[in-house]
Amino acid sequence: MKTLLSFLVVATIEDLGERKAINLISEFLTRGSEAIGIGDDCAAFKLNDDYLLISTDMICEKTHIPDKMTPWEIGWFIVAINLSDIAAKGGKPLGIVLSLGLPKKTSEDFLKKLMKGADECATEYNCSIVGGDTKENSNFTIAGTAFGLVDKKLFMSRRGAEIGDIIAVTGDLGKAGAGYYSLKNNLKNKKLQLGLTKPYTRIKEGKILSETGMINCCMDISDGLSSSLYQLKDINKVGFKIYRNQIPVSDTAKFLSDRKDFDLDFNVLHFGGDYELLLTLNPENFEKVKEKIEKNNSSLTKIGVVTQQKKIIIEDKNTQILENKGFEHFK
Amino acid sequence: MKTLLSFLVVATIEDLGERKAINLISEFLTRGSEAIGIGDDCAAFKLNDDYLLISTDMICEKTHIPDKMTPWEIGWFIVAINLSDIAAKGGKPLGIVLSLGLPKKTSEDFLKKLMKGADECATEYNCSIVGGDTKENSNFTIAGTAFGLVDKKLFMSRRGAEIGDIIAVTGDLGKAGAGYYSLKNNLKNKKLQLGLTKPYTRIKEGKILSETGMINCCMDISDGLSSSLYQLKDINKVGFKIYRNQIPVSDTAKFLSDRKDFDLDFNVLHFGGDYELLLTLNPENFEKVKEKIEKNNSSLTKIGVVTQQKKIIIEDKNTQILENKGFEHFK
Repeated sequence: MKTLLSFLVVATIEDLGERKAINLISEFLTRGSEAIGIGDDCAAFKLNDDYLLISTDMICEKTHIPDKMTPWEIGWFIVAINLSDIAAKGGKPLGIVLSLGLPKKTSEDFLKKLMKGADECATEYNCSIVGGDTKENSNFTIAGTAFGLVDKKLFMSRRGAEIGDIIAVTGDLGKAGAGYYSLKNNLKNKKLQLGLTKPYTRIKEGKILSETGMINCCMDISDGLSSSLYQLKDINKVGFKIYRNQIPVSDTAKFLSDRKDFDLDFNVLHFGGDYELLLTLNPENFEKVKEKIEKNNSSLTKIGVVTQQKKIIIEDKNTQILENKGFEHFK
Repeated sequence: MKTLLSFLVVATIEDLGERKAINLISEFLTRGSEAIGIGDDCAAFKLNDDYLLISTDMICEKTHIPDKMTPWEIGWFIVAINLSDIAAKGGKPLGIVLSLGLPKKTSEDFLKKLMKGADECATEYNCSIVGGDTKENSNFTIAGTAFGLVDKKLFMSRRGAEIGDIIAVTGDLGKAGAGYYSLKNNLKNKKLQLGLTKPYTRIKEGKILSETGMINCCMDISDGLSSSLYQLKDINKVGFKIYRNQIPVSDTAKFLSDRKDFDLDFNVLHFGGDYELLLTLNPENFEKVKEKIEKNNSSLTKIGVVTQQKKIIIEDKNTQILENKGFEHFK
């Protein structure tokens, strides 16, 4: 009976989950030939020799903003996460607009600090807040839209992974999870916390990577490593073999790893909010690309290979299927 | 004592109102030389010979969306109001991204109809929905960001009104007010209602106007005529003399004008949501421009003149100061 009943009940987005909701949306859209990149990190729009990249992200109180985040951090955060999508395509950010949905009782002081954080993040990445909108909303909400440019020939798509490619990641993972643990347990350890609340985005690294012309596909890891790998798997119709001991783990996650209630594997493999880039490239090119990244005081680490078998295997003490436990909204 | 106490109380955005909140925000922003247009309808960003125009607008359940609006209409509406800002600058819209904040219980059917409305509006204006984001939000919220291009030489700014200019308006006013009255009083008159819930934007007219090179300043009347006039007055440091009997009134507002509880003056002069263009130009050029607009099956009506005296006078049965009763969020 359950099946029959379910069939009669109108589906809600809670049943669908975020990605199916997005698929549903894209089915209904009429698109001109200039627009590409649906299902990618950014929308991309042909503009002479470039793509205009447009990324939009919304965060809301209650569901996305931990209580203890300061207004400055919220401002930084909304800009950083939008720029991360531009970074993943090799883009140069130009600017960002913010739409603020504010409860009536929002203080002037809160608004000032929020905008200071947003402005400082934009300035850090050589772009600026160029406009916005403020509206009353019972639930504090910010939508940011970042735009940038990338030479058409240098655009890094989510599509293009080839069997035999190395899969690699910039920086390290576990920062956001360690930050969340620190906030939740009131550790008052600012260094830990900032891994969640003050993400840096890989604009510089994205540019270097795209300019090598050697990257087969690239995305940012906003929803966690496992979720990102499953997205790349589905788009590219390939699989991955991941080596657990090669995944670069942040100092902050290592610092917490002896705590019984800190699940290191979960925080490194599944937790969202580490705005690193995940990419594949031909093994022949890996050392050259890694060197370029390292010359710029950053890091690139091989974490596995692209396989023909359409599964994601993780080689640890045991070899097993990597579960997809990344955060999906609504579910 | 009140003054002293007020001084001690932390200001909230309810005290400030939307425009002061926006001024407050813009004080804090670091901007590069490529970004212009703060305080204008759109952000504008130098891109070769063009400006990239970016407009963002957020609407939220409870504060901006009447109960009886259908999901299709909400979708149409969020696209239309964003495109209106592009129209006011003479821009050609390229695309739009939508960030949706959705309660968990949003139905698949609602989402489909919403996106159908958004898509049909975008298609009507030869652009497309190129991307978006969906997030969980306890209060249904949509932020749209539209982008477009305009030749730098054809950009119509809010600044530039000259003393002696004619002030003119496209189309007619009162449509949104009549629509709101119809919804509120459950008249079930679709024609009336659509004036509020399915606004058309003046993309074609904006392009024609900008291409004449004769428009001294232009903005869209999203917040109502009086509010828009006060904004132009402050930006341009001029005044206006408005002739009440020259203001073009919509058939729908005329239709309701004999009802005691329908305040025609309020709905024509102050009510927001008529997405017409308000502009000034030299009297010498008025007939030429009017003719071009009429050739394209639209209308342009002189409603007054720009004056040196920094007041807004309305000439009716009596001549008096036009009050600024337009809708301002938070207040």
